[in-house]
Formats: sequence, C-alpha cells, structure tokens
Amino acid sequence: MLDRRTKGLAPGTVALLEDNARKPVGLVGVTPASKIAGRMLDRDPEAEIGRDWLAARLGKALSLRERVFDTPYYRLVHAEADGFPGVIIDRFGDTCVVQPNAAWAEALLPELAEALAEVTGVTTILKNAGSRGRALEGLDDVDAVLLGEAPDAPVPVEMNGATYMADLTGGQKTGLFYDQRPNHGFAARLARGEAVLDVFSHVGGFALAALAGGAASALAVDGSAPALALAEEGARRMGAAERFSTRQGDAFDTLTALGEEGARFGLVICDPPAFAPAKPALEAGLRAYEKVARLSAPLVEEGGYLVLCSCSHAADLSSFTGACLRGIGRAGRRAQLVHTGFAGPDHPLLPQLAESGYLKALVFRL
Amino acid sequence: MLDRRTKGLAPGTVALLEDNARKPVGLVGVTPASKIAGRMLDRDPEAEIGRDWLAARLGKALSLRERVFDTPYYRLVHAEADGFPGVIIDRFGDTCVVQPNAAWAEALLPELAEALAEVTGVTTILKNAGSRGRALEGLDDVDAVLLGEAPDAPVPVEMNGATYMADLTGGQKTGLFYDQRPNHGFAARLARGEAVLDVFSHVGGFALAALAGGAASALAVDGSAPALALAEEGARRMGAAERFSTRQGDAFDTLTALGEEGARFGLVICDPPAFAPAKPALEAGLRAYEKVARLSAPLVEEGGYLVLCSCSHAADLSSFTGACLRGIGRAGRRAQLVHTGFAGPDHPLLPQLAESGYLKALVFRL
Repeated sequence: MLDRRTKGLAPGTVALLEDNARKPVGLVGVTPASKIAGRMLDRDPEAEIGRDWLAARLGKALSLRERVFDTPYYRLVHAEADGFPGVIIDRFGDTCVVQPNAAWAEALLPELAEALAEVTGVTTILKNAGSRGRALEGLDDVDAVLLGEAPDAPVPVEMNGATYMADLTGGQKTGLFYDQRPNHGFAARLARGEAVLDVFSHVGGFALAALAGGAASALAVDGSAPALALAEEGARRMGAAERFSTRQGDAFDTLTALGEEGARFGLVICDPPAFAPAKPALEAGLRAYEKVARLSAPLVEEGGYLVLCSCSHAADLSSFTGACLRGIGRAGRRAQLVHTGFAGPDHPLLPQLAESGYLKALVFRL
Repeated sequence: MLDRRTKGLAPGTVALLEDNARKPVGLVGVTPASKIAGRMLDRDPEAEIGRDWLAARLGKALSLRERVFDTPYYRLVHAEADGFPGVIIDRFGDTCVVQPNAAWAEALLPELAEALAEVTGVTTILKNAGSRGRALEGLDDVDAVLLGEAPDAPVPVEMNGATYMADLTGGQKTGLFYDQRPNHGFAARLARGEAVLDVFSHVGGFALAALAGGAASALAVDGSAPALALAEEGARRMGAAERFSTRQGDAFDTLTALGEEGARFGLVICDPPAFAPAKPALEAGLRAYEKVARLSAPLVEEGGYLVLCSCSHAADLSSFTGACLRGIGRAGRRAQLVHTGFAGPDHPLLPQLAESGYLKALVFRL
C-alpha cells in the first residue's frame, strides 16, 4: 500500500524506496495511479537518474547487440532486463523508435533522446505512444518526433537474407517484430525447394525468410491488407515476387479452406497473436492453439515441417507444447520435435521474471 | 507383467503386441530381462522389420539432416524420435558409428549395416558397444567393425568454423558430441576479442568454437588428458595453437584456483557431465550446478557472459535455471538471460517424452 505522501507524488517522480526499517532499497520510478506503483531503477540510492545514467545503460545494452548482430537493426532496449523498466527501443539503422510505457521514462524523455543520439549516433528518434500500457500509467497516446524527421515511407530491413518493410510511423508496435529472427532463420533452413505456407504472416516474417532460404513458393496469410502489402513490397525488393503470393482473410477460415482444397505444403508456419496474454485467457488460449495445430497439420506433407509459435505470456512452454500435440494428434498425425526456439538475444530476460519469456517457437516434423 | 511365453522369447525377437482384447497394438522388439521389455517398432502389425524397413527409416532421418546441415557430420539417428528405439548412429563423413543399445537392433545388426551403407553411401561402419545401457539389455561390450576399416587416428570434424578431433574407436560415446553444436555457435558470437574459459571442455567443444569466433585466447579445463590432447590438436590444425591453452585437473578445484588467482574472462562456459542423470540424484545434482555457477560467476568480467549447461535428464529447465541463479546470486552477481538453447536439430525429440530433452544451455550476461 502506498502512503498518502506517495500517492501525492507526480507520475514519473524518481523516489527513494525504503523498507519497513527505513533502510534504503533503491531508487524507483513512481506512478501512484498504476498497479505497478514503483519500478526499480537502481539499487544504489545515491545514483543520479539523468542523462549520464541513461547513457551508461544504453551503452551496456548496445554492446550486447553489437556483439551478436552485424548490422544496426535490433531491439536495443528490452525493458526491465536491460535496466529500463517499461521502456522499449527498437533500432532501424539511423533511426530509433522509443516506446516509453512508464511514467518515469516519459518524464525523462528529452534526456533519454539526447543520450540515445549520443550513444548510438542515430539521427532520427521517434516516439511511439501506441502501447495500451501507457493508459495504465496515465500517459497519452500521442506519437512524436524527438529528433530528426520521420521517414515518409516504410524502410527496408535485412534479416536472414530477406528484406522486410518496416512502417515506423503507421505500423503495429515499433514497425517490425525483431523477436522471431532466430526462428525465421531456423525455418528458412527447412524451406529449400519447398512450397511454404505462412499463416498470421504480418509483414511476411517467416514467408520472406523462407523465400530467402530457397523456397519454391511462399503463401502468406494475414487479416491485415496493409501488412500483406508490406510483405509484397519486401518480396518485390528481394526479386522473389513471382514466388510469393498472399491471401487476406481470417486465418482459421483460410486454414479450413486450404484443407478443403486439398492444399499441401512442405513447410507450414503459424505465428498467431497472443491467444493467452494473461492467466484468465489461458484455457481459451490453449484451445485456440490446439485448433491452429489441428487445422494446420493436415496441410503438411508427409515428412514435412510444421512451425507453431506462441507469444502468450500465460502459456508456458509445457502447456503450449501440449496444446500443439493435442491438435496434431486430433488431425491424425504424429510428430517429432526438431527444434524449440525463443526470442532472439536482443530480447534478454530478467531470469527471475519467467513471464518475460513470452515467445516460443516449436518446429515439428510430421 | 510379461506372461511365461513372452519371458521365454529370445532377446531381440520382434513380436506382435496385443491389448487385453487381443487387438493388435503394433510390433515390438522384446528384451524379456530388461526393464524396457518391449520397444515399439511399428504400429502397423503387418510391417516387415528388416533391411527395407530399416532403410526407409534411415532415409527419413537422413533427409532431415541433409536439410539442416551442409556437410555429412551429424547424429543421423537419435533413438526413439527417429523410429529406432535404443539406437544411436553418428556420422563422420564416410564413417558411421552405431550404438545398438537394444536387443532388437543387435539382432538386426547385419541388416542395419547394409541399409546404412546403401542409404548414406558410407564406406566404414563401426559398432560402439560402450554404452551402459547394453548391459541392461543383456548385451556384451565388444566393439566391432561392421564395414570397411577402422580409422587408425582421430578424424577431423569441422563445426562452427572450428576443427575437432574425433576419436571414433577409443573415445567416449561415438567419439564426439554433436548435441552442443548450436550452443557452441551462439557462444562463439560472444567470443570476439575476449579471453575465454571453457570448463569441462572435453575435446574443446566451446573453446575451439570461441577461437574460430575470434577469441583473443581460450583456456580449456578438463579432467581427461587424452581429451585435452585432442583439443590441442584441433587448435593446432586451426592455426590457433598460440591462442589456446589447457589445464588438466578437477574442474571445481580449477575454478576455485582461478578465483584465488584473480583471473577474469569475458566469456566463461561450464558444460559439466550429467550431475542429475536420474530422479534420485536430482537434489545433489542441483546443488552441484549451483556450485558450478557460484564458482564460475566471479571469473566473469563486469558485462561479460557466462554459459551454463546441463545434460541431466532429471533437471528440467526451470529447476536448472533456478540452481544457476542461486549460484550466481551467492557469488554476489546479477544476471540477464540472453539465450536459452537445447540440443541441435539432429537430436529430435519424441515430444511425449519430456525426459528426452536432456540438454540445456543458458547464456547469462553478468
């Protein structure tokens, strides 16, 4: 419980947290109205939370990414695990997109932008205020340009040999999901010469990687026409447009229709949105994952591969695997598990927070 | 319980398993004296378990490996998950090493060797009878040459840009462990320019990959002088001998000594033998993993990386992670979890058998 004095603090105030014996625990960013009333910023009660402090943490985050990636396209800051509770920063070459989803970061946004430009050398910094988390923090949903000029068109991003088009101002989240990169790469190794189906494809995540990996063809299915248009533009830039096709529509309906058409693929990937984002949705979410598996397994050739993904916090690896196996079994198929993948290394975890490991990708051979 | 007639079957007999209603369940390989009295070979009661059947399964296993690897160095058959219960086959170019650790496979060994040569084109097939599992099946421990001639020296194997020396006739298991390949590769991405410590190094698994990844230096620690000699030969062939050194001795003692010497590394890897191979050893095993973490964490530079591995069936991912975190915490360090890896795709799993997912590699940043 917050005392009355704490409740009166302005959102985003940095305050000293003390235990019951008034021993200092550390500095926290306070949002009195939020369920997360305090976010630990530094266990050193003497720390000065300002531009230099932000720059030091950004430098540490940058050094991990520069070590594991050859080009400056990655998630630079992954919230708590990088010492920035509530803050996401994705980098697209000379541009960074910041999601300051906690009041302490919103209050320090000018210093954060300065430190970011200094540490990374980026020339454009955009603020994306689209996260639902901001409302819980009492923050507005107004995007802004913090440095430079917003790009007037989607920017190309190279990953796993594919070209993705990232819409940094109009898209979901910060414009592109980097988290599936290693799983895209693994699936691409299975794609050579195969017909590939990528369901819940968004901007072509798995489909374009499969084309780069030598797929004979790739069909991307998504509900969003703008996302599929970006996928098509990526395929065109890759010189792979004639191997690429799209179907816009509901994924479950499309899986059912493809089954009725007798369509078969050497590699099928389903990377749906979070069906079980939180505990109350777990049972329904697992049923939805089972349904995805049941509808997609019949589309896989004998000896072919099925990649099933979950980005649900509430569905742990074991329960997600179980749901997939039930679905595959109900489709009358049997499976080997060839690979289990998580989010890439630009999405580090605080190991104490198991829930932060939301992304799972299971690669089955049927 | 086996009935008297089943108890009288010769070990390795292929028999029809029926349920209580005498409905056929499938064909099983029988070992009356074993705790695993029957191993399911085929759910089709009409299947003919012989050379053609073996060749078909080998062909399916081969097609996965050829898809994900560019060179013929891999585990070709990973027991149950590849439809060969109790059988391991590792491939080293033109040579295969077979571990027939179940009586049905021992009985079919001539047919298996013929099918293996036919499907893969290998010219040498060695039988390794060193597994403890063979005694439980009532099988001898006599190695043999099933085709061609045994190599008279360790053979070089290229993985992740490193050269490993595999002793196919005198070494542990089949001569080299392929399972850590993707984790070696990930660690190598962290090694550039760093001093690297590889504890429980065996034939240099992580150390040589780190050298290939550009490590400034690598120190390999192992209890086995012959294994370290193979590691040194690998480093020599890589032209990296001057960046490589070894310490033969007990790993715990060496970790303690390095701590007392004040040694520091940018990357430390500990890949111990199975401390918790089975349930009764779980508690003691987790304490040993905690100790490894506690002794190794102080050797990691601030901002450096610590890779902790377990190949224990009984320690699941969550309990192994917990043990590592306790050890890191007791060393007074804090960690990000950057990556979680499992065995490579040439070690597929029967997803129903969670225990078959024995290998875990956790990459922490301290």
